[in-house]
Amino acid sequence: MKKKVVLAFSGGLDTSFCAIYLAQDMGLEVHSVLVNTGGFSEEELEQVASRAYALGVTSHATIDETENYYNASIRYLIFGNVLKNATYPLSVSAERVSQATAIANYVKKIGANFVAHGSTGAGNDQVRFDMIFNILIPDVEIITPIRDLKLSRESEIDYLHNHGVEYNAEKAKYSINKGIWGTSVGGKETLTSHDTLPEEAWPTPVTATAPKRITLTFEKGEPVALDGERLGPVKVIQQLQAIAQPYGIGRDIHIGDTIIGIKGRVGFEAAAPVIIIKAHHTLEKHTLTKWQLSWKDQLASFYGNWMHEGQFHDPVMRDIEAFLQRSQETVSGDVFVELNPYRFQVIGVESEHDLMSSAFGSYGEMNNAWTGEDVKGFSKIFGNQVMIWHKVNKV
Amino acid sequence: MKKKVVLAFSGGLDTSFCAIYLAQDMGLEVHSVLVNTGGFSEEELEQVASRAYALGVTSHATIDETENYYNASIRYLIFGNVLKNATYPLSVSAERVSQATAIANYVKKIGANFVAHGSTGAGNDQVRFDMIFNILIPDVEIITPIRDLKLSRESEIDYLHNHGVEYNAEKAKYSINKGIWGTSVGGKETLTSHDTLPEEAWPTPVTATAPKRITLTFEKGEPVALDGERLGPVKVIQQLQAIAQPYGIGRDIHIGDTIIGIKGRVGFEAAAPVIIIKAHHTLEKHTLTKWQLSWKDQLASFYGNWMHEGQFHDPVMRDIEAFLQRSQETVSGDVFVELNPYRFQVIGVESEHDLMSSAFGSYGEMNNAWTGEDVKGFSKIFGNQVMIWHKVNKV
Amino acid sequence: MKKKVVLAFSGGLDTSFCAIYLAQDMGLEVHSVLVNTGGFSEEELEQVASRAYALGVTSHATIDETENYYNASIRYLIFGNVLKNATYPLSVSAERVSQATAIANYVKKIGANFVAHGSTGAGNDQVRFDMIFNILIPDVEIITPIRDLKLSRESEIDYLHNHGVEYNAEKAKYSINKGIWGTSVGGKETLTSHDTLPEEAWPTPVTATAPKRITLTFEKGEPVALDGERLGPVKVIQQLQAIAQPYGIGRDIHIGDTIIGIKGRVGFEAAAPVIIIKAHHTLEKHTLTKWQLSWKDQLASFYGNWMHEGQFHDPVMRDIEAFLQRSQETVSGDVFVELNPYRFQVIGVESEHDLMSSAFGSYGEMNNAWTGEDVKGFSKIFGNQVMIWHKVNKV
Amino acid sequence: MKKKVVLAFSGGLDTSFCAIYLAQDMGLEVHSVLVNTGGFSEEELEQVASRAYALGVTSHATIDETENYYNASIRYLIFGNVLKNATYPLSVSAERVSQATAIANYVKKIGANFVAHGSTGAGNDQVRFDMIFNILIPDVEIITPIRDLKLSRESEIDYLHNHGVEYNAEKAKYSINKGIWGTSVGGKETLTSHDTLPEEAWPTPVTATAPKRITLTFEKGEPVALDGERLGPVKVIQQLQAIAQPYGIGRDIHIGDTIIGIKGRVGFEAAAPVIIIKAHHTLEKHTLTKWQLSWKDQLASFYGNWMHEGQFHDPVMRDIEAFLQRSQETVSGDVFVELNPYRFQVIGVESEHDLMSSAFGSYGEMNNAWTGEDVKGFSKIFGNQVMIWHKVNKV
Repeated sequence: MKKKVVLAFSGGLDTSFCAIYLAQDMGLEVHSVLVNTGGFSEEELEQVASRAYALGVTSHATIDETENYYNASIRYLIFGNVLKNATYPLSVSAERVSQATAIANYVKKIGANFVAHGSTGAGNDQVRFDMIFNILIPDVEIITPIRDLKLSRESEIDYLHNHGVEYNAEKAKYSINKGIWGTSVGGKETLTSHDTLPEEAWPTPVTATAPKRITLTFEKGEPVALDGERLGPVKVIQQLQAIAQPYGIGRDIHIGDTIIGIKGRVGFEAAAPVIIIKAHHTLEKHTLTKWQLSWKDQLASFYGNWMHEGQFHDPVMRDIEAFLQRSQETVSGDVFVELNPYRFQVIGVESEHDLMSSAFGSYGEMNNAWTGEDVKGFSKIFGNQVMIWHKVNKV
Repeated sequence: MKKKVVLAFSGGLDTSFCAIYLAQDMGLEVHSVLVNTGGFSEEELEQVASRAYALGVTSHATIDETENYYNASIRYLIFGNVLKNATYPLSVSAERVSQATAIANYVKKIGANFVAHGSTGAGNDQVRFDMIFNILIPDVEIITPIRDLKLSRESEIDYLHNHGVEYNAEKAKYSINKGIWGTSVGGKETLTSHDTLPEEAWPTPVTATAPKRITLTFEKGEPVALDGERLGPVKVIQQLQAIAQPYGIGRDIHIGDTIIGIKGRVGFEAAAPVIIIKAHHTLEKHTLTKWQLSWKDQLASFYGNWMHEGQFHDPVMRDIEAFLQRSQETVSGDVFVELNPYRFQVIGVESEHDLMSSAFGSYGEMNNAWTGEDVKGFSKIFGNQVMIWHKVNKV
Repeated sequence: MKKKVVLAFSGGLDTSFCAIYLAQDMGLEVHSVLVNTGGFSEEELEQVASRAYALGVTSHATIDETENYYNASIRYLIFGNVLKNATYPLSVSAERVSQATAIANYVKKIGANFVAHGSTGAGNDQVRFDMIFNILIPDVEIITPIRDLKLSRESEIDYLHNHGVEYNAEKAKYSINKGIWGTSVGGKETLTSHDTLPEEAWPTPVTATAPKRITLTFEKGEPVALDGERLGPVKVIQQLQAIAQPYGIGRDIHIGDTIIGIKGRVGFEAAAPVIIIKAHHTLEKHTLTKWQLSWKDQLASFYGNWMHEGQFHDPVMRDIEAFLQRSQETVSGDVFVELNPYRFQVIGVESEHDLMSSAFGSYGEMNNAWTGEDVKGFSKIFGNQVMIWHKVNKV
Repeated sequence: MKKKVVLAFSGGLDTSFCAIYLAQDMGLEVHSVLVNTGGFSEEELEQVASRAYALGVTSHATIDETENYYNASIRYLIFGNVLKNATYPLSVSAERVSQATAIANYVKKIGANFVAHGSTGAGNDQVRFDMIFNILIPDVEIITPIRDLKLSRESEIDYLHNHGVEYNAEKAKYSINKGIWGTSVGGKETLTSHDTLPEEAWPTPVTATAPKRITLTFEKGEPVALDGERLGPVKVIQQLQAIAQPYGIGRDIHIGDTIIGIKGRVGFEAAAPVIIIKAHHTLEKHTLTKWQLSWKDQLASFYGNWMHEGQFHDPVMRDIEAFLQRSQETVSGDVFVELNPYRFQVIGVESEHDLMSSAFGSYGEMNNAWTGEDVKGFSKIFGNQVMIWHKVNKV
């Protein structure tokens, strides 16, 4: 009886090569699987499935992880206002973790002996896949034909041709990865340090021009409604993305540290994520205390970095999530946002938990809750230690 | 002989009141002083001086602190990419610290017995002034007539009138504070949580429309040249501000925690600061290691908050500055920026210290410095502890 | 009808003075209350109550907060291994917070108009009491006769005498404060920087000499059993204290930052707290991942400092508690400790969650889970960025 | 012409095997080197050299790194009060970094083609050596015969015998590693979680019993004198160690995270390091501000961990050192310590930078620098935000 391998399959050249290679050269029973994290339409999913069967896989499965992905990861990225290096919403990083985890569970479910992925030896994804498989299914061997064989694109196409499969040899000018939390764009310009992507490289052309105001409603930190319509978080993200991306909002280039130590640059468009994060953060600034804001920043920065490095299954991530979750108790209310071509602006917020209540004194105006004497005393005591330090050290 | 008081003097209603009150009601010899941190023109400075003498001060001094302010504070705010709550370049906060320190030194220089400032009992500035005076000149008594007397605007105008000084009773719709590191704007809308400032409120109208590319040159973290012209940091900031503010860049509203515990909202325009910080940060992402970036963030966040709270003279600030300074050793190179109405974009960088060198392998491309086997081993060891955790805890 | 005041009452000179002063000079109906956090015996509590009634209070209440105190604070101090400045288990700091909170609730319960405490103007406790009352019962006025009147000890004794109450004029050589989480000792030597407390100053003399082994059992971070006897946390602490304090364990002097900016020194004996914390920490080192340990340290250090400063009711404390609680999921097992005069030693642990399992390779011994090649690859990739940095910067 | 290899040589079984294997099986010209970090006597160094030549090496060099090691590492471990997991002074970790760096420099100096070390595949040292060689001499190939060949102890002894070298087959019961910053002890008990080392395992027997007071003098954080004798830091450490280790002070067991993800346990005796660190920390508590203490802790904890993981050459370490160095400006003075069998106690300090000066008010005593009213105002403002939070959220 043949041994089973689960293959993470996208329908692209690399994983098409793998599908045949695993079956014919390695003699395995290939079960391909695609984990959708919100980047594929129904039609695209069917095309991938057809292609898988055309390549001769024993079975092909589509797993829709969008809701799970939101609940397990995106939620906390919102709570933490996570923008890696103050820029990147971690679109691909979080998605890969979600996909690798779903695949590991699928391997357990069908009792496969091997798991295969099409990563090369040069990026972050290989580490995320390898490591999460090592952690969750340590007794299942990992096969990475592309990385191991180091084949050129041409050799792969030839190999497929020799096995009766034709592949369009023309390479797309930009490589695109799409998920619910953003779309990444890589190409010639991102391989250098000094250039930006041309207009044509961005998947969504800028077609919206009229300024538009929207209202985002948050409940305990989660975006639950758009313009008063209660859609639930996943649909809020998707509809906001449909409205805002045509403005060209949320386009930027991220230059970051890969897990393997080199610097990498990637373009992305992520209108919904960047709008939601800035809106959420503004609401927090109105509703959380100073030290909540400060500690959230520190923890979320680590959370994002550790997620980026594929370390989602470290229990410290659960501990941080417990912190973040608890911190959202009062992060409820409406946030008003104006969209314009290539930019957006948070207009303001409305929340019953708003700590900026005129009942407690307005900034710059006198009030009744405390006196000038109180502040005078405060200033004296607040500076006491440093005053002593200066006296003792005669600075 | 009369006792001397140094009065922090801006020429506005409150400090005009103080000038007369200190002299006539308290019988002090008034020495007014204005500390310029880059927000006043020569003409404005002369007007303030004339006004001071018109109010009868014994002496008036103008102290130009712009270069000192840059060297003591702004430099480190750039090194740390400090944007409070990911938004505000701390324009006013840092300026007040610089002013209070200069005034304290002036008090020592002329041997004054008292020091006076015109703060009310409602904002941050009273704490910054009180505390820095307590620290640097603890034996000099602080007088705060506006805070102590709690006079209304009308009473102050009446008082001035009764002492032969006329003051235009009409209040400016928006209160503006200008310095080299940004201009703050407060008004009706910033007293609420839900509204933004109207176009007319912004001091600099948007008049530039043509996209424009500029080059910023950094040396060890400091912006030393603009478009190849070696101006030195202060002039780079001023020229960049003159070019970029007419694009409406760097306008936003900051909602933050005041030192006295209430939330406060303030608009600001700060084109040069936000462009310089994003450009500098991008250059750092190319030239610093992962952990340099991470620790800089944490320290700079505290540094900004502690500066905001007026605690500049805590020796921990010097320790953090030593860290920040040391971290800038390799932060040299050019950064290319494109300006557009209401937005700007960092195009890319060029630096001999760029760690994203194709010589060491490109992101997403195979290379010779390490093998797929190396990464496989790395992934295994990197996930080892979490793998063990999952096995032991049978999760 | 007289207005009601709740008086935090200990039976000492200061609060005895307050009891009479509030009733007779201020004309208030005095309701005294003592909050026991584990430092008083039944007998002592009765003495305090008798004394209160002898002073003429309208009512006296004893509130036993020991269990609440454990659940609300000590538990998290254990989870966080909190030793302020690596030394002090925060014995008094946490206790005051607990007491002030209980008193505020009592004020609400009996509908008092005022709340009074006997703090002087020189320590931490005044801030803790004032602030917690301001936060929890902001509409209730705070009265602090000792601080306001600045009476000498002699004047207080005279005042009591004139009101028919005799007070033993001899002052104890050392002032002692006892609670379940430790006993503080202040005296002549702690007012200087260079001296330590003499043997006679410590409340518990050293009478135990024979080495003794004990076993502490933790469940999800809480000490639930001693030598196999399931007592629950409060009784474990109390019994361990009874066994270990006669060894002179957990004596030290803490020099720390008071809330008001001066440095203060205080002796303490706290055998049970220091043993439990070191035992708990050791168990954590066996059962938590590297980053759990690291983040716990950072959060717990802040948690302890913020608790010390009386800021227990900041919601950030709840967020940190959520983190700490979650982190304890696997912190269960036995810890073996040996007691000796003036010292103790953690011998080892036994836990089903121990990550140091020989099944996964022993430190320093070869194993089967990974190969030398894996580590070689790991070392290469782990050092990759710094290697690149050195090459680029030719260091 | 033969190619050159530099061999890190200790004279033990593993590196003796390597010496012959590299020469005879690999045909290399072997240049052995021992880097002394304070753990070897002159006599021992000569024995190792003789042994090297007896094994047929072309040259043998002894590099004394003790002073360099102190200046590059120990100094900062003292500044940071670094005890890993609140226990371990990083004795071996820091030493290996120093040794690997010295060896890399020696490789460059003699122009060797290879570098070899005798690490097995199971510990931390292999990563430290591999990584530091990869970073500092990336073009030099690393050879690790013991890790690659996975020979048993017996096979190595046989191999040596076959090459005419006799090795005493009896293995020491405890493996000892000695350096100036502490001696590690591993053995049967440290391979388990539940047991401690027996008295006989500790290298230094407890022979001192009489209590002894000593005075340590620090200058800008460095221990420069012992009992008034100005020895310089290295000699202070060595003399203190000679005095204090016979008391059995500084013995403990560290359970920590190895770089490769498993937990490892190791005993150590390190009287001088633990006394110096506690003395230094106490002096800092008297002389530094609250936030200096707090940030030092955070940075030093990372510094220690990153050093432990061999990442000494990451430039972030230089940045942290700049912080630590700056923070020591005022850490000068005398610290009084009492030694007793198995324990020591810091008695107190004397420093002109002591912030606990009675001139500024004593803890618990009234003073003139501020009033009760000041503290009342402080408490109100200090709790303002949390008060507002409770009101808004009706908690």
